[in-house]
Amino acid sequence: MSKPAIYQNREIIKYNHGVIEHAEDPVVQENPLTLFLNHVELATMVCSPGGYEELGVGFLLSEGLVQKPADILDISCREEDGLLWIETSSPVPQTSNFLRRHIASCCGKSRAGLYFINDARQLKPVESDAQFTAAHLLEIINLLEDKSSTFHLTGGVHSAALADSSGMLCMYEDIGRHNAVDKVLGYAFRNNISTDDKCLLLSGRVASEILIKAARANIPLVLSRSAPTGLTIELADEMNIAVVGFARGQRFSIYSHPEKVVF
Amino acid sequence: MSKPAIYQNREIIKYNHGVIEHAEDPVVQENPLTLFLNHVELATMVCSPGGYEELGVGFLLSEGLVQKPADILDISCREEDGLLWIETSSPVPQTSNFLRRHIASCCGKSRAGLYFINDARQLKPVESDAQFTAAHLLEIINLLEDKSSTFHLTGGVHSAALADSSGMLCMYEDIGRHNAVDKVLGYAFRNNISTDDKCLLLSGRVASEILIKAARANIPLVLSRSAPTGLTIELADEMNIAVVGFARGQRFSIYSHPEKVVF
Repeated sequence: MSKPAIYQNREIIKYNHGVIEHAEDPVVQENPLTLFLNHVELATMVCSPGGYEELGVGFLLSEGLVQKPADILDISCREEDGLLWIETSSPVPQTSNFLRRHIASCCGKSRAGLYFINDARQLKPVESDAQFTAAHLLEIINLLEDKSSTFHLTGGVHSAALADSSGMLCMYEDIGRHNAVDKVLGYAFRNNISTDDKCLLLSGRVASEILIKAARANIPLVLSRSAPTGLTIELADEMNIAVVGFARGQRFSIYSHPEKVVF
Repeated sequence: MSKPAIYQNREIIKYNHGVIEHAEDPVVQENPLTLFLNHVELATMVCSPGGYEELGVGFLLSEGLVQKPADILDISCREEDGLLWIETSSPVPQTSNFLRRHIASCCGKSRAGLYFINDARQLKPVESDAQFTAAHLLEIINLLEDKSSTFHLTGGVHSAALADSSGMLCMYEDIGRHNAVDKVLGYAFRNNISTDDKCLLLSGRVASEILIKAARANIPLVLSRSAPTGLTIELADEMNIAVVGFARGQRFSIYSHPEKVVF
């Protein structure tokens, strides 16, 4: 069995000490996989390509829903559509109301493989014509780095912050990348801070769930020290969000909507 | 408002080029927070201390359950118990069957702040008297590092593997730390590989959810290049699992059950 490609090359724009160039760079793939247990939809996960059957079985095992190999009667998978069916030899209790992972309720248009849990919750593109200068983006990401003391100490914490041209408005550190972002968005929400001219800063990877949070909060630019996924870039294209990654020192890479960055 | 400590010092055992010493080291904290929306339990998250109200609001915002500050009528929090209540000004539909994050169904004994979703699913300590040599642990973690090509290329993938004294049995890379572990456990499960004498290897942080997966799979040792959380260590103490972290080159740190490591 050949191993599926875990990343693919994409056209991006690189900025390095004032020099702008178009380049091809590897971007990690992120695919949605929806698991049906005994013909009932159980969970949608986003994952790397490959090992879908193992993932489904491991998920059931980790959740305590199967105990021994004989508990599994049948497995079938349509990899290209991101659909997996598992049947157990005896009924599994309580699966309908506590296990659904809720992620893929967005981006109805372009992407094969997204199974729509709830069409009514679909996202709308961000409405904003805000722009950010390269110098400002580098200034605030380096400020985030300077302030992220806990990460250096314990190697285990992500940072997230909200910034505009006046500087950083709030910053949180959390063991969970999603939590750090939720705390930032919750702070802005509670304090009636408009977000359509703001930039969301992250120390960690920009996975699709982070992009969805930014879209819901109407934030036009996501800036990270780390890399976005392929699914994030596709969503960002649709949602009118600029994704700027690998921002460190005097360099960064633009993965979507480069018109929001001015040099 | 003073910022709560995001980490705390713990007694650990450090191994470095054959020298063993007891040391105090900072470990990142990981606390469970259960959110009740309009008096109905909605989700339990694990997070860093602090910003609980912002996290709850940001979570609702990210999930599309609130849209504007006026949607929130009241918030109250008992930080020390990890409980948060949010009331909305109008009813929120569909919260009962698709949003519950399922994590804290374990460790009934020692820890305040864990809200038990389902006592029946409580875990049992791992039954195993397997031991692992220091030299072997370093060999396999360095092998994982050598094989983890994608991480170096894209900065966005975690590795997980299963090993015993004969070497590595399977290895997966995934954008999700949890997915990589689920794929490994699913592989072992489908192939009838016994796990009570195996070691689970990880490139990334050992959060409590990973420890719970190891406990369910009856794996006696978790070995990582990165750090465990405080909650992970507490669970590992109870679950009879050795957690060995920061394993790189010729060094590692033991956080729980050091009797499983022989020198």
